[in-house]
Amino acid sequence: MLAYQISQFGLENLKPTSLPDPQPGPSQVLVRVHAVSLNFRDLSIVRGKYNPKMHLPRILCSDGAGEVVAIGDGVTRVRVGDRVAGIILQNWQDGELTAAKAKGALGGDIDGMLAELVVLHESGVVPIPDYMTYQQAATLPCAALTAWHALTVATQVKAGDTVVIQGTGGVSIFALQFAKLLGARVLGTSSSDDKLRRAYSMGLDAALNYHRHPDWAKWVLEQTNGVGADVVVEVGGAETLSQSFAAVRSSGTIALIGVLSGTEQPLYIPLLLHKQIRLQGIYVGSRAMFLSMNQALSLHRLQPTMCKTFPFSAARDAFEYMANGSHFGKVLIALA
Amino acid sequence: MLAYQISQFGLENLKPTSLPDPQPGPSQVLVRVHAVSLNFRDLSIVRGKYNPKMHLPRILCSDGAGEVVAIGDGVTRVRVGDRVAGIILQNWQDGELTAAKAKGALGGDIDGMLAELVVLHESGVVPIPDYMTYQQAATLPCAALTAWHALTVATQVKAGDTVVIQGTGGVSIFALQFAKLLGARVLGTSSSDDKLRRAYSMGLDAALNYHRHPDWAKWVLEQTNGVGADVVVEVGGAETLSQSFAAVRSSGTIALIGVLSGTEQPLYIPLLLHKQIRLQGIYVGSRAMFLSMNQALSLHRLQPTMCKTFPFSAARDAFEYMANGSHFGKVLIALA
Amino acid sequence: MLAYQISQFGLENLKPTSLPDPQPGPSQVLVRVHAVSLNFRDLSIVRGKYNPKMHLPRILCSDGAGEVVAIGDGVTRVRVGDRVAGIILQNWQDGELTAAKAKGALGGDIDGMLAELVVLHESGVVPIPDYMTYQQAATLPCAALTAWHALTVATQVKAGDTVVIQGTGGVSIFALQFAKLLGARVLGTSSSDDKLRRAYSMGLDAALNYHRHPDWAKWVLEQTNGVGADVVVEVGGAETLSQSFAAVRSSGTIALIGVLSGTEQPLYIPLLLHKQIRLQGIYVGSRAMFLSMNQALSLHRLQPTMCKTFPFSAARDAFEYMANGSHFGKVLIALA
Amino acid sequence: MLAYQISQFGLENLKPTSLPDPQPGPSQVLVRVHAVSLNFRDLSIVRGKYNPKMHLPRILCSDGAGEVVAIGDGVTRVRVGDRVAGIILQNWQDGELTAAKAKGALGGDIDGMLAELVVLHESGVVPIPDYMTYQQAATLPCAALTAWHALTVATQVKAGDTVVIQGTGGVSIFALQFAKLLGARVLGTSSSDDKLRRAYSMGLDAALNYHRHPDWAKWVLEQTNGVGADVVVEVGGAETLSQSFAAVRSSGTIALIGVLSGTEQPLYIPLLLHKQIRLQGIYVGSRAMFLSMNQALSLHRLQPTMCKTFPFSAARDAFEYMANGSHFGKVLIALA
Repeated sequence: MLAYQISQFGLENLKPTSLPDPQPGPSQVLVRVHAVSLNFRDLSIVRGKYNPKMHLPRILCSDGAGEVVAIGDGVTRVRVGDRVAGIILQNWQDGELTAAKAKGALGGDIDGMLAELVVLHESGVVPIPDYMTYQQAATLPCAALTAWHALTVATQVKAGDTVVIQGTGGVSIFALQFAKLLGARVLGTSSSDDKLRRAYSMGLDAALNYHRHPDWAKWVLEQTNGVGADVVVEVGGAETLSQSFAAVRSSGTIALIGVLSGTEQPLYIPLLLHKQIRLQGIYVGSRAMFLSMNQALSLHRLQPTMCKTFPFSAARDAFEYMANGSHFGKVLIALA
Repeated sequence: MLAYQISQFGLENLKPTSLPDPQPGPSQVLVRVHAVSLNFRDLSIVRGKYNPKMHLPRILCSDGAGEVVAIGDGVTRVRVGDRVAGIILQNWQDGELTAAKAKGALGGDIDGMLAELVVLHESGVVPIPDYMTYQQAATLPCAALTAWHALTVATQVKAGDTVVIQGTGGVSIFALQFAKLLGARVLGTSSSDDKLRRAYSMGLDAALNYHRHPDWAKWVLEQTNGVGADVVVEVGGAETLSQSFAAVRSSGTIALIGVLSGTEQPLYIPLLLHKQIRLQGIYVGSRAMFLSMNQALSLHRLQPTMCKTFPFSAARDAFEYMANGSHFGKVLIALA
Repeated sequence: MLAYQISQFGLENLKPTSLPDPQPGPSQVLVRVHAVSLNFRDLSIVRGKYNPKMHLPRILCSDGAGEVVAIGDGVTRVRVGDRVAGIILQNWQDGELTAAKAKGALGGDIDGMLAELVVLHESGVVPIPDYMTYQQAATLPCAALTAWHALTVATQVKAGDTVVIQGTGGVSIFALQFAKLLGARVLGTSSSDDKLRRAYSMGLDAALNYHRHPDWAKWVLEQTNGVGADVVVEVGGAETLSQSFAAVRSSGTIALIGVLSGTEQPLYIPLLLHKQIRLQGIYVGSRAMFLSMNQALSLHRLQPTMCKTFPFSAARDAFEYMANGSHFGKVLIALA
Repeated sequence: MLAYQISQFGLENLKPTSLPDPQPGPSQVLVRVHAVSLNFRDLSIVRGKYNPKMHLPRILCSDGAGEVVAIGDGVTRVRVGDRVAGIILQNWQDGELTAAKAKGALGGDIDGMLAELVVLHESGVVPIPDYMTYQQAATLPCAALTAWHALTVATQVKAGDTVVIQGTGGVSIFALQFAKLLGARVLGTSSSDDKLRRAYSMGLDAALNYHRHPDWAKWVLEQTNGVGADVVVEVGGAETLSQSFAAVRSSGTIALIGVLSGTEQPLYIPLLLHKQIRLQGIYVGSRAMFLSMNQALSLHRLQPTMCKTFPFSAARDAFEYMANGSHFGKVLIALA
């Protein structure tokens, strides 16, 4: 089989490698991958920035969907022919995240999904919604699950609440879609009027171009009668966190997801104290959350926002397209 | 002013009485009532069944909306001209219900809203949504707030969840509307195909006539791949509770609201244990919950379902109409 | 090996059977059982009352502890020599109970622990605290875990709270010990002054003999300035539930654990509504809860209350002793 | 009456001023103050650092206890002769903190407790535990309530959990005492071996001198089998936050309380994400939390740790003593 396995960091090293076909062991399933989606994490990994000490060689990418083509001994939950997606944190089945459950991330700690064939534990996959194509399903494991986790588990967004999203990347657009399903009001920022127009068409309630109006917290306060937002979905960026502190209401939550920008942020403590803010790190989600998300997706037949699809042979172009930052929603790679 | 004040129990004793106009004391507001809505509790009170030892005379009804026409000394949160509704549990401002907060229910422990003029503490009213008429707002204090409390505070219903409602009374119809706002799937039962058709038009996902199919729990299980509902909004009825136990999923919640039927219910303990069911009593809600509900109402411009409106002079007809049980949504009384 | 495997219901059928030694398959461990403790459920199962349709033959008992003597292929979390206890619900690892997780109860759905050798999945055992003997550890899987679940997961009992326990069976005594660890005040009832004296010596704050004072709810209210208890650990009994409703405070919880008495209880709805009571079924607990409990046990070197120990050859006497109802704490069976 | 009212910032301006005796208006109570305790906030306020734009003149100090000597019209919850303490956030009665409830802090937004007589709304005081002296009760409103809020409301610390405290100031010592009541294990750091010895005698489980071992996070990991602490009570300090991030477990909470040190902290985002840490601002607490804390105090007759008491006439010495930083527990001022 072919796989994008890197032996050294750098986008220029991205090319398909021929590897022996993997075989499922006990409790494992063999998946023929039909689609993969990209996340900033994948880009950051290739560039050696995510974890410079990562063990190489490594097959890339956390997000993929495909068909089960073989199963190992003792597999009870999955059958040949099932349409599945991998879960990124293979060991986080349920309950609270622990250090042990945080290990085993696809395309990071262990080999990922950018391959024609992948072997996973039977509990490391979930059935994908019937109405979805493989490409649609490939958008779910990272961006969708992170947004779902932030809005329905880490916080419980309800009708009438105000949610702030930043930009139009994968997590932000899923957060928009989920927040609307939950009955919330969504305020969004972007540097592009075009992208804000697209977000409007998807249900965004109010938008601000932060290039023209960098003090977007002030605008959030105006939009909420001076109260502030219930939840800010913070996707990072060196200048956003201070605005998020100002934009969130007393007792509100900043769901911190972002690895977009620098890793060191100044934290203005008195505001955090006197507004009693909760700053909550969000790291993807568990298999149980994935199943719960799929129920919502299926009920509403929600359509993931796919920006552009590249063939498997041009995966490197997909990474470069993403590096450009001009996407809206998810970038995909299709396999046969 | 005129008020429906009863001196002895019985629907036949319902007639307007002339009383001196009340005046607001310190921290109090005087409200000119424009609309009142009826609940089963009001009917039960008039009949002497809700609390046979209730102190009489008593002005009836818990739910009303009107305009503030005067304020007492020290009032800071309300102004003359404000459009307000009373909150039923005048002492439940915020936080958890306590015995002390449960005292002071309008139209029960203290005089109610079926009067031309009413005096309340300034914290005993909430502003009503701008888009609503007084009649629409009069539907909120009991039925809407109870449903909101059940679905967003006692439980946190989210997109993809399944909620079961029973019948088409005030609480059930608001529960339908709120559950849809929250992205849930709603299954409903009624003895009337006509009413189920109306509920369908309001977003009900699936319906069953329990006269023809008394074992509705079986149907709920079929509709949920054998899993059961996340939440059952139980409005009472001697035969419903055992069905609710069978219909709710493991770790699910039965939100017990009903006073419709008998007060003694058999409770099948092994099911409660092995499915780890939560049976949660719901008693209206706090002022803070009312304000939170109003945010959702305003965002979605939700239209309360009003069945029929009677003039103040014919309030007794309204009670009798409700006693008939043929209503769908709320029964209203309009004042000048 | 020998095992107490029943082929038909009835205490008189309890005798050791010779069976082939089991062998661990992939991901399984072989445990040499050193101690077993009894629960009412075991008695009820033998009598054919717990589940008259239970598949027979069946090896009895849910609670046991022993040493790992062999491991199957692919076992990573357990080593030969480890001291372990079985978890009752073998499939409930973490998170919320589901119907699937509720299946696979030791000594009920599948073979249990009253055998010299037992094979379990590696995730179906937990390490026992270092300071405990096997007999002490054998008291944990049902009674202790149920009490821990009730007081730290289903509710979060904290210092200053009031907890009511009923009688002096296994769950109640562990609930007493855990509630004291958590800083709560514990009120207890029993029909025996002797048992109450023993409970006093273990930290019980106040006690009532319910034979002399059947209206124990009134006493609980007196002890709590009329407020009622925060949590009642309800272990069943046809007369206790109505008292529990009266004894619990507004917004309080009745943790329903009991299978002691009849299965049909009248439920007085108005009280549940107006006090906004939560009636919460508790079904043992997950592996994650077991691990968390073990941390508390180890920190405090808590001593389980063991009533009497019978040899493996006299297991039937142990069942009969328990049937007598004169025990205080746990009844044990020791293996070589 | 005499009061420490400042007209300009600076410790040198601290001297008693003669002011007219205040009188209680409607719903208000007049308290003769018998004891006041100091917090860093008070020191910071006097120095003009807490809020340089604070409106002056202002009577200082948030924490005081005394006897009710008169009540205004309409007071129902308080009687003359009651022993009470003021609550700092006079408008935070119950429920979640809002911007409105955060206004009205004693000794900050409004006049404080360092006066012979103080007028407060009847809901702005709580009864103090019977067993406590006024001096003991004066330690509660800020330090104790903040610690209680952090450990029982913001988090729910339970038996077996590990809590880290920093130093031996008022909040930290109450956190130690409360964590022990809740059954937790407490790890503490200080720069003074003497203070650590005192903390040991109060129940501290393990201690580290951070002057000799600045990397205390490493030590916390060693003490917890590499897992990390469940809760870190962060009282500030420019160097502590990065250690707290390293010391807390996955899914753990850093309860951020401190105003001790600088207000700008670098925040290392990847750790917050991958360990899914919650950083939770804590701002004192509500009246309802105060009442709940008093139940725990009364049950356990907990003794607040009082460092030194100064007479009212020497209040400035008390501030200077606190500025020195050599205290352990609370610094007090006694009035006649």
